[in-house]
Amino acid sequence: MQTENPVTSAPFAHIDEAVALAHAAQATYGAASRAVRSALLRGLADALERDAAQLVAIADKETSLGDARLNGELARTAFQLRGFAERVDAGIANLQVDDAAVPGAPPAGRPQLTRVHVPLGPVAMFSASNFPFAFSVLGGDTASALAAGCTVIVKPHPGHPELSRRVHALAARVLREQGLPEGVIAFVDQASREAAVHLVGHADVAAVAFTGSYQGGVALWRATNARRRPIPFYGELGSINPLVVLPQALTDGVETPAATLAASITMGCGQFCTSPGLIVVHDDADGDRFAQALAQTLSTQKPHAMLTADMHRGFESATAHVAAQAGVRVRLAASAENDEAAAPAPRLFETDAQTFIANAALHEEMFGPAALIVKVRDEAQTLDVLSAVEGSLTVTLWGAQADTAANRALAATAQRIAGRVLFGSVPTGVAVCDAQQHGGPWPASTQPQTTSVGYAAIERFLRPVALQGAPQWAITATSGTATAE
Amino acid sequence: MQTENPVTSAPFAHIDEAVALAHAAQATYGAASRAVRSALLRGLADALERDAAQLVAIADKETSLGDARLNGELARTAFQLRGFAERVDAGIANLQVDDAAVPGAPPAGRPQLTRVHVPLGPVAMFSASNFPFAFSVLGGDTASALAAGCTVIVKPHPGHPELSRRVHALAARVLREQGLPEGVIAFVDQASREAAVHLVGHADVAAVAFTGSYQGGVALWRATNARRRPIPFYGELGSINPLVVLPQALTDGVETPAATLAASITMGCGQFCTSPGLIVVHDDADGDRFAQALAQTLSTQKPHAMLTADMHRGFESATAHVAAQAGVRVRLAASAENDEAAAPAPRLFETDAQTFIANAALHEEMFGPAALIVKVRDEAQTLDVLSAVEGSLTVTLWGAQADTAANRALAATAQRIAGRVLFGSVPTGVAVCDAQQHGGPWPASTQPQTTSVGYAAIERFLRPVALQGAPQWAITATSGTATAE
Repeated sequence: MQTENPVTSAPFAHIDEAVALAHAAQATYGAASRAVRSALLRGLADALERDAAQLVAIADKETSLGDARLNGELARTAFQLRGFAERVDAGIANLQVDDAAVPGAPPAGRPQLTRVHVPLGPVAMFSASNFPFAFSVLGGDTASALAAGCTVIVKPHPGHPELSRRVHALAARVLREQGLPEGVIAFVDQASREAAVHLVGHADVAAVAFTGSYQGGVALWRATNARRRPIPFYGELGSINPLVVLPQALTDGVETPAATLAASITMGCGQFCTSPGLIVVHDDADGDRFAQALAQTLSTQKPHAMLTADMHRGFESATAHVAAQAGVRVRLAASAENDEAAAPAPRLFETDAQTFIANAALHEEMFGPAALIVKVRDEAQTLDVLSAVEGSLTVTLWGAQADTAANRALAATAQRIAGRVLFGSVPTGVAVCDAQQHGGPWPASTQPQTTSVGYAAIERFLRPVALQGAPQWAITATSGTATAE
Repeated sequence: MQTENPVTSAPFAHIDEAVALAHAAQATYGAASRAVRSALLRGLADALERDAAQLVAIADKETSLGDARLNGELARTAFQLRGFAERVDAGIANLQVDDAAVPGAPPAGRPQLTRVHVPLGPVAMFSASNFPFAFSVLGGDTASALAAGCTVIVKPHPGHPELSRRVHALAARVLREQGLPEGVIAFVDQASREAAVHLVGHADVAAVAFTGSYQGGVALWRATNARRRPIPFYGELGSINPLVVLPQALTDGVETPAATLAASITMGCGQFCTSPGLIVVHDDADGDRFAQALAQTLSTQKPHAMLTADMHRGFESATAHVAAQAGVRVRLAASAENDEAAAPAPRLFETDAQTFIANAALHEEMFGPAALIVKVRDEAQTLDVLSAVEGSLTVTLWGAQADTAANRALAATAQRIAGRVLFGSVPTGVAVCDAQQHGGPWPASTQPQTTSVGYAAIERFLRPVALQGAPQWAITATSGTATAE
């Protein structure tokens, strides 16, 4: 169980060097004032925007995501960095709870205590494939770690290596301009599984942030737990995002809802962690018309290529696995020609509630433009289907606006399994704001009480400390109200 | 890896039954109003106090902790239940963040979002041996889970079985009186390791709270992580609680500080999770006088018997292991007669900083009345010793009141490894208040960002959910402002 690594080990010297830089920078950056941290976050946002045209061109070449989407994503990434900067200025990392001393014997009597927050230390940050800006080098994990006062060791995703290098070079320039050590944002330009395991096992890494596949994430989570001294691992691993279509949602016809849903399923070629992969529909005439309309609309969609050839293979394999399950009907199959292309055709499957509930193979994510329709008999069976899912980033409810006992039960069940519950709309698209929650019970997140999108994401990288009987200088130094750095 | 259990399995039918009760009660209790939850917490406090004399007598028979201590602990437990009740009334479990919709395109444009908190669900709660009231059936874990709206499955500690049964019977009576289902506080009267593993693996258990030994805790943590869908595990596992004696603390002589420290080391026969087990002293004349005075005072202490024979054996084995390490000097040995008694004699060991840093065997807790003195050359070496500890519930600093660079470095290092940093005083005795933090980096806690003492402990059992575009009834139902239950 003692898998922490020595400070240097030849095959991973590059990683050890990056960790050493981040570790060395932690003392300075962890003690830096709010003004220093927020200036860094704003400087990174400005630099991204200044180089936007060039960066988007590289990103498009590497990911096929297209100019419009990539420009929007870069804007979101800059918005997010500035949003964290504003909140750092407002003291989000410096929340403090004071309990004055109370004379007398315990339990009522007590010493003076002040609860402050300290940064965890260097964070190993694993970039995602599907958001080359927003969940990559300067994405939400990096922004929230920097806001908390943690240095970051960026592990880029092999799906966009050149973009990652460019964005890191840009970050390094901003650090130099602002007189901060380069180790505040260290970079590991190495992609093997063994290298990743080495990184999360390094004694000087204090936390891990990961967005990616279930298998890759679980492997790193296990490696992190096998350390002599385990550390927090924040993994966002996979989610099937149930969308419940109640009969009330179809009273104005099936065409518009089907088109809305088809667009969400195929957005970004289905490579969104919040892509709706499970559609719960009542087993009645309207439900069947809706399923048909959905299949029809999906068949006309032409998604762009997937991010990597590996992911395309993974999608074909996952959809074939679902298609092969007993009791599953293929509503929309891949045509032979589409199977050969880099851009996969959308798929749609259908099954009944009992089959779904009994077969865990149907509860797993198909990452790409595919969904499984589950036909339910009634509202009680809808609850059973959701309960079988167990964990998801989102649940979307269509037609549940009215205050009825059935809708209350549905909303309660949805909240039991998901981090975000939508009343109407589609789950793709995650707003960056204070109220956001992007996380949920396993397998959505390894730490379901945390979020990787929105400003509460900073909490992952802060640890509370109670200072007992502390002199004022000690409280001030930690609570970040000091202006010096 | 699929170790979740079927709903019934003969050898553990008793456990399955308790989980089924808690699971069935969760829907009702999780949706109960603040008034219902706070009335329950207050009712439990009242009932404990009403039966205090009888309960303390049983506890003393089973634990040897003595009337004074046990009466104080019962008072603390009732105080804690009432403190959670007050905070439930004030809305601690119902914090809500609202982000109004912003028209326009993302990233600035966004839907309406409200962040609320939902209870995790049934909590498997493992009682500790050393606080038969405050960390047992109705202790802090139960109180905070109930405050969060979670039902609890209590696993009593075998060190005080009769007391546990009595306190549970009392709780069951309060539940009946208040018209709540008995499963709100379910009880598992079975103690084997296999039974415990079965309990944490049960599909209907949503979280685990554990206070106890490192080995037992890690075994259950691993079992929890081996579930098909892992769940949060809050374990408080062990801590050596460094206490740093700076030369400034000894300027008025060594006798008083030595007596204060000796009392803390032997309090409760050293069976406190915050017992100071590592004493860092400068290697100079005053430091040596202090070490001598400490050994002398300790030799006069007569601790009561340890909680169980197993724990006594564990203490003898842990201290013998430390005594056998190269470079360790025995400052105070057990006399032959003490070794035979149920009450162990205090032990004191001494080593130098380099020996300590290099030998991980010296970083582990000796649960009982023992401490290891580490002699340091200077302040820099003090930081190295603390860094080698890595994780602890507390660090205590004596003589670090002045605002100097050395004290700032010491305070920063102490905060990096501990959840509570004391300036003066002793770490035994943990105030129940809002600012408290009882937790720290591994091995102190499996989830170092949470606390098991103080009112922030409730956060362990709540999960944020973002409600998007939700009708008012859905927000009200979850945020607990509804008065109906």
